[in-house]
Amino acid sequence: MGDSPAGKGEGKRLMKLDRNDRLVMIGDSITDCGRGRPIGEGSSDGLGRGYVSLVEAFLTSAYPELNIRVTNTGISGNTVRDLQQRWQTDVLELKPQWVSVMIGTNDVWRQFDRPTMPEIHVLPEEYEETLERLVAQTAPSVKGIVLMTPFYLEPNKSDAMRARMDQYGGIVKRVAERNGTLFVDTQAAFDRVLEHVYPAVLAWDRVHPSAAGHMVLARAFLDAIGYEYKRNNG
Amino acid sequence: MGDSPAGKGEGKRLMKLDRNDRLVMIGDSITDCGRGRPIGEGSSDGLGRGYVSLVEAFLTSAYPELNIRVTNTGISGNTVRDLQQRWQTDVLELKPQWVSVMIGTNDVWRQFDRPTMPEIHVLPEEYEETLERLVAQTAPSVKGIVLMTPFYLEPNKSDAMRARMDQYGGIVKRVAERNGTLFVDTQAAFDRVLEHVYPAVLAWDRVHPSAAGHMVLARAFLDAIGYEYKRNNG
Amino acid sequence: MGDSPAGKGEGKRLMKLDRNDRLVMIGDSITDCGRGRPIGEGSSDGLGRGYVSLVEAFLTSAYPELNIRVTNTGISGNTVRDLQQRWQTDVLELKPQWVSVMIGTNDVWRQFDRPTMPEIHVLPEEYEETLERLVAQTAPSVKGIVLMTPFYLEPNKSDAMRARMDQYGGIVKRVAERNGTLFVDTQAAFDRVLEHVYPAVLAWDRVHPSAAGHMVLARAFLDAIGYEYKRNNG
Amino acid sequence: MGDSPAGKGEGKRLMKLDRNDRLVMIGDSITDCGRGRPIGEGSSDGLGRGYVSLVEAFLTSAYPELNIRVTNTGISGNTVRDLQQRWQTDVLELKPQWVSVMIGTNDVWRQFDRPTMPEIHVLPEEYEETLERLVAQTAPSVKGIVLMTPFYLEPNKSDAMRARMDQYGGIVKRVAERNGTLFVDTQAAFDRVLEHVYPAVLAWDRVHPSAAGHMVLARAFLDAIGYEYKRNNG
Amino acid sequence: MGDSPAGKGEGKRLMKLDRNDRLVMIGDSITDCGRGRPIGEGSSDGLGRGYVSLVEAFLTSAYPELNIRVTNTGISGNTVRDLQQRWQTDVLELKPQWVSVMIGTNDVWRQFDRPTMPEIHVLPEEYEETLERLVAQTAPSVKGIVLMTPFYLEPNKSDAMRARMDQYGGIVKRVAERNGTLFVDTQAAFDRVLEHVYPAVLAWDRVHPSAAGHMVLARAFLDAIGYEYKRNNG
Amino acid sequence: MGDSPAGKGEGKRLMKLDRNDRLVMIGDSITDCGRGRPIGEGSSDGLGRGYVSLVEAFLTSAYPELNIRVTNTGISGNTVRDLQQRWQTDVLELKPQWVSVMIGTNDVWRQFDRPTMPEIHVLPEEYEETLERLVAQTAPSVKGIVLMTPFYLEPNKSDAMRARMDQYGGIVKRVAERNGTLFVDTQAAFDRVLEHVYPAVLAWDRVHPSAAGHMVLARAFLDAIGYEYKRNNG
Amino acid sequence: MGDSPAGKGEGKRLMKLDRNDRLVMIGDSITDCGRGRPIGEGSSDGLGRGYVSLVEAFLTSAYPELNIRVTNTGISGNTVRDLQQRWQTDVLELKPQWVSVMIGTNDVWRQFDRPTMPEIHVLPEEYEETLERLVAQTAPSVKGIVLMTPFYLEPNKSDAMRARMDQYGGIVKRVAERNGTLFVDTQAAFDRVLEHVYPAVLAWDRVHPSAAGHMVLARAFLDAIGYEYKRNNG
Amino acid sequence: MGDSPAGKGEGKRLMKLDRNDRLVMIGDSITDCGRGRPIGEGSSDGLGRGYVSLVEAFLTSAYPELNIRVTNTGISGNTVRDLQQRWQTDVLELKPQWVSVMIGTNDVWRQFDRPTMPEIHVLPEEYEETLERLVAQTAPSVKGIVLMTPFYLEPNKSDAMRARMDQYGGIVKRVAERNGTLFVDTQAAFDRVLEHVYPAVLAWDRVHPSAAGHMVLARAFLDAIGYEYKRNNG
Repeated sequence: MGDSPAGKGEGKRLMKLDRNDRLVMIGDSITDCGRGRPIGEGSSDGLGRGYVSLVEAFLTSAYPELNIRVTNTGISGNTVRDLQQRWQTDVLELKPQWVSVMIGTNDVWRQFDRPTMPEIHVLPEEYEETLERLVAQTAPSVKGIVLMTPFYLEPNKSDAMRARMDQYGGIVKRVAERNGTLFVDTQAAFDRVLEHVYPAVLAWDRVHPSAAGHMVLARAFLDAIGYEYKRNNG
Repeated sequence: MGDSPAGKGEGKRLMKLDRNDRLVMIGDSITDCGRGRPIGEGSSDGLGRGYVSLVEAFLTSAYPELNIRVTNTGISGNTVRDLQQRWQTDVLELKPQWVSVMIGTNDVWRQFDRPTMPEIHVLPEEYEETLERLVAQTAPSVKGIVLMTPFYLEPNKSDAMRARMDQYGGIVKRVAERNGTLFVDTQAAFDRVLEHVYPAVLAWDRVHPSAAGHMVLARAFLDAIGYEYKRNNG
Repeated sequence: MGDSPAGKGEGKRLMKLDRNDRLVMIGDSITDCGRGRPIGEGSSDGLGRGYVSLVEAFLTSAYPELNIRVTNTGISGNTVRDLQQRWQTDVLELKPQWVSVMIGTNDVWRQFDRPTMPEIHVLPEEYEETLERLVAQTAPSVKGIVLMTPFYLEPNKSDAMRARMDQYGGIVKRVAERNGTLFVDTQAAFDRVLEHVYPAVLAWDRVHPSAAGHMVLARAFLDAIGYEYKRNNG
Repeated sequence: MGDSPAGKGEGKRLMKLDRNDRLVMIGDSITDCGRGRPIGEGSSDGLGRGYVSLVEAFLTSAYPELNIRVTNTGISGNTVRDLQQRWQTDVLELKPQWVSVMIGTNDVWRQFDRPTMPEIHVLPEEYEETLERLVAQTAPSVKGIVLMTPFYLEPNKSDAMRARMDQYGGIVKRVAERNGTLFVDTQAAFDRVLEHVYPAVLAWDRVHPSAAGHMVLARAFLDAIGYEYKRNNG
Repeated sequence: MGDSPAGKGEGKRLMKLDRNDRLVMIGDSITDCGRGRPIGEGSSDGLGRGYVSLVEAFLTSAYPELNIRVTNTGISGNTVRDLQQRWQTDVLELKPQWVSVMIGTNDVWRQFDRPTMPEIHVLPEEYEETLERLVAQTAPSVKGIVLMTPFYLEPNKSDAMRARMDQYGGIVKRVAERNGTLFVDTQAAFDRVLEHVYPAVLAWDRVHPSAAGHMVLARAFLDAIGYEYKRNNG
Repeated sequence: MGDSPAGKGEGKRLMKLDRNDRLVMIGDSITDCGRGRPIGEGSSDGLGRGYVSLVEAFLTSAYPELNIRVTNTGISGNTVRDLQQRWQTDVLELKPQWVSVMIGTNDVWRQFDRPTMPEIHVLPEEYEETLERLVAQTAPSVKGIVLMTPFYLEPNKSDAMRARMDQYGGIVKRVAERNGTLFVDTQAAFDRVLEHVYPAVLAWDRVHPSAAGHMVLARAFLDAIGYEYKRNNG
Repeated sequence: MGDSPAGKGEGKRLMKLDRNDRLVMIGDSITDCGRGRPIGEGSSDGLGRGYVSLVEAFLTSAYPELNIRVTNTGISGNTVRDLQQRWQTDVLELKPQWVSVMIGTNDVWRQFDRPTMPEIHVLPEEYEETLERLVAQTAPSVKGIVLMTPFYLEPNKSDAMRARMDQYGGIVKRVAERNGTLFVDTQAAFDRVLEHVYPAVLAWDRVHPSAAGHMVLARAFLDAIGYEYKRNNG
Repeated sequence: MGDSPAGKGEGKRLMKLDRNDRLVMIGDSITDCGRGRPIGEGSSDGLGRGYVSLVEAFLTSAYPELNIRVTNTGISGNTVRDLQQRWQTDVLELKPQWVSVMIGTNDVWRQFDRPTMPEIHVLPEEYEETLERLVAQTAPSVKGIVLMTPFYLEPNKSDAMRARMDQYGGIVKRVAERNGTLFVDTQAAFDRVLEHVYPAVLAWDRVHPSAAGHMVLARAFLDAIGYEYKRNNG
């Protein structure tokens, strides 16, 4: 289904975020994208050059009346283990109404590109327990949480790293279901595009998205929170 | 009206661009945004950090099967007089199927911030004649042209520079009508957002857009070429 | 009235500053202008590239016998809330005979360009109370205080941000009157120039002055402290 | 005499420059001060950081209605021999109504700091002939020329380099008298300040002025062209 | 078989290169690796940081008496079409006794990561004809040519780009057979390692080798030219 | 003796390192070569540009199934006195199975290039005692230690610094014998090459090796740990 | 008197420094000249680019058998007040046999170029007391002290700053006499050269010496410690 | 023999250079030392940081009345073959009274560190013929030529490169004798110092001198042109 049938401004609003809500988006390098420090916000540079900036741009341009505050606390190279270390300062103390989490790429990747360093591999059990704990701890104090799967832009599902990433995506889905959060299957969103283009169009290393790749992420996120596209001349 | 009622992939396609079409987008600093030289294309950096990159990201992520080629030939500081000098190399020789033009900001601005330098002021008559000539010369060899108005993020329509910019926007509209091109009223798109936010949210100097401002431009352009928003899970 | 009727060196001196006086000028980015750290003084670079350097240059070139010491302690982005934090070290401990304060731009601006961040908005009540407190605390230990209004180079007085800036300028005036300090209406000084030129000539973003804009500020300040222009060959 | 007795806007105007006049200021490093290339104008950075920028700031802030265009074509290290090489492109082709020239520092300095290189010494005869030729060639096509002496911030008139600089200043005066141009004795203006301060306050090397030194130059120039100081609240 | 059974210095030498031979190695970024310009040689920096430098280091350390000259003329981004343009200056005019060529990565890659730009795709027919022409033209004037296949560090042979790369590797093999040159199957050498490690260990983007990846290339090349490993204490 | 007679994969493996072993290589600038901080590992840049990176590349390319972890903790300028200071953190706490040490260059060099600074000269007695202590302390907790001599690329054995370096190499040999460690005579390996080339080919300053020099070191080390060269097509 | 009449190696040695002596040279920017931190020594860069490096070069090239250690602890901008703060760490703890001190330039200069800042002026009484105290405190533990006067490259002795510098030079002489140290009249050494050249040849700002100026200083110092010039072929 | 017995200013002057003479010093990197381009002169930076700057500093400080002009036209990496290419512009067209030449290091060095590149080896015959030709061509138009030998800071005269360098030094001596020029045996000057210190004290790579090494060169040159050392207090 496409847009709301009710038209602009009269029917039921699908958008789940309310006026003056704050949305904190945490994750790894795909979220970070060069954001400002210590807290990324306040301008497009402050939000980095990835999907977080696009989300803010969509919300401000389409819902200027909502005055949504978007904050980026992604850090390159992070695993869920790192998120746990800084969850208090980088999520809870910011007192958001909404939180999004996209983590897991490095948890998996290190198992494949640094096979000699087991101490930096975050295995499925630790991944699930940690993510579960963070979500459970946060849910009571926010209006909503959006859990986004990690992804790997490898269309061959029997590739070892893709298979492992899908396993972690499955964990995210289970955590979302158990905790009743919103869920974004980023891998599925990318897979639809990969039916038509080779992965190199979306990410030079199958991990870090191009501008088009970040647009896929932003749109998948926006769909989850009820964004309605309105034609400019609608 | 919002999306196509026909649903994904079965009804009439609104998108005016065809598979393998090339779209050349020319303009001034708002188009340029740090694009690659001599021709801006090939990656998000090559397309700059503004609305052109967003347009490409929208098209690739939503219409990956169309394989649209987007090329940015904006140059900071340009007026329509400059476009004329490089039209042959920067538009015609690239053999595009589609051309977009957004020019006029500097034609107007120099009249206000450099009042002592009349030789760099492009007055309305020259502006209209030059734009008309470029469009008329190009129309026979392309599938379509998109004329975008210049804009000024000053909500007070009696401000001297805003009034002058509106005059130039009117010229763009007349040229579009006379030549049967697509037309994008960027000023109107911004005005709808300015009902809710102060100009500083969209541009620090009322001219160069923030990320949100570029999203306004990209969406206005996409509406004009028949982009249909499809929900990720639609 | 123009110059002193009494002529050079014989009539009553209008200049309020005495030999060896120290003048500390505090404020935000308009005062800062890249001054040296931790204390800005000692050379033109140390004083930044704005009105403070001009004031020093005027005093040294026209009153070399007075040996006035000018110190710049402006910091970009400051509000009156920030001044309060550093008033002890950046004003009182420097033991000046004269103090000038120009603050309020960011107190107001953040309300317009960062509408989502209420914690950094300094509203009128806090602004007035804080400024009042700083002035009252300082007056007993100095020969004089010069309060300069913040300004916004937008000639349209019904513009939302201009109207708010005028409100803050009114507060400065009331504080000056209650405490018997010198008062400089920078907005009025700019408004006289804006009758003839568009704001872009004085500041690219309506906030940060050009060289001409800083000259307006310096001259307005100098008038307040009794500077007399002497022709070189007078 | 100080200000005009007639008050603002009604009596006889002393200012010699007319509305829309262009003033080209040429010279050496003291004029250059990091101006833009190839022609210095258009913004404070474009005019460099010296007396030329101050002159423009004075004119724009005090006579905004005159719309005077100031252009800086100083080049560091130049002698009058260099000016002759580029006079056609850097003065005449700019079609100014007014021209100012301050040259001679390097003509003299090289005789003292590079005694081994006679080919770069411009001796008095060559200096006078060249300057005479430039002025005579230019006078017919402009409204006015302002000749400014070179200077050396050494108060001891029997110092060898000061004595030589005074000789060159005398040449400038003779050329000015023979050609009926305006004349600015910058050395005299500095000497009045040097009665009260040591040279190091005005220039670290007795040649390149501090901010205060440039203010001395700007004010001396402005006096010559009829600038009237108007109190801000006059 | 491993080393020569005959022992150091007495049996038949396997090494095909003779004393004072010059070996020119041409290719794309995998060969280039930051080599010196215009000709890469003379030091490890001059040879770049890839397999070419390793080859030189092996030859100098193991066969110091042969005084082999290694020259790197790889250029990042090159296709076989680019090699043809510079073959005269970058191979023939250097008068080598031996030439190695590893080209094809970009010929294939551009078909996948720049699908919108057909003019930069080098298709199989052009690839084979051009490579054939270069080899045939060069063979008469050298002692030997080493043709190295391009490679793609994707173990899944049904991946579209891997399949295409294998097709180009097959072309290289045919050209080598037709012309009687030495042949190095780099893909096969990598495939043996990929049985044990994930591709990310050998190349972050499946194209540009890590230090270990370059060692694979160097060793494959050395085997082809008859390098014999001698134990240090042998 | 050359390669193993038994052929690939069937006979007795000579390689002394086992699957998942960690090898820490410590030393001075010859080991450091710009490695990452605080611990050098994880990528070719992390391991520096010298023999350590080559060792890792050899092991990964030839024994990918062993998953050996190589860690570089060399620091430029170090003497054995410095190693002692950081042995706990830079060797023992990393819990390696294997340790290599190449130290002594600076212990000797400072005696010759800084003759005025006796406090930084590490004389033979201190050198031997310290090295002995480090080895004895470490042996119980590792599978093996490799002691590499320092070297000086001066073929004239009566040169004062070469003679002193040989003395230190003799100490290393004695320590190795007393403790039953592996021993690598790097000087002997270089001397074999120096029979054919002048020292400048291997090191511009007779100390810091070229790429070929590092290859000599890497191969000498590999021979000591049982590396078997396998032809690519063997 | 010129050289020793006794000739090389047989008569009485004039050189006061003995084998293995350490000479610590402390002062301001004229001594510092970009030396290494925290202690300047060990190479020409470590000793800075001024007279200290020249002194070391003279001693090493002419008296290589003495193995003199030269250490530079000058710091730009220092006054004698600053020397006192760091005398313990930068002189005494280095345990020198010889100490040279050249200080006073900034003590005087600040009185002239920063007339508004009395707190950084070191007046004669403080200067003399401090220098006296440092010398008296140091003499017992060293073989010798060399006191060098500050200087000002202004030949006009009635210039205010020159006269003040001569006053400080007189103080140095008195301290030297009272304490029986060696004494170097740098001003006198410069004055002899200034009879023939203008100050700009020796220092662009009359303070910081050119290469020739540093040679004057080095030679004056060397004369004081008994350096004998020996012809290369003598 | 030491100094002139006649004392300052009365006996026969030994100095061969006359007032206002120009001395052009050409050579390779040892002469260049980062001099200014295209012609090195005018300040210590312009003359580079080596012996040329020292020579100028000696002459200016000891013979200020002679006003000698020193010009550095050394270029790093040059051989005598390169000097021939630029002799017309870099020596003859500068119209010097005196010329010094120190060349040959690279002519020899390339034979040892680039054994694979015979085309850049300048062998003895070519070296002698070329140097002879340059000297013979120049002698008629100058007052004097100073030929300085190349050198190698290796005390072992049977070292291959040292022996070769001595051979080239012998050639320089023969050319000097045949043409009656001044001759400086730099190798002999260094050898006297090397009796006491290890080469590393004078040059890190046995080629590029330290500050002390450049002092050896400068003093050897000065001795040849008749420099007399005068005690400062003589």
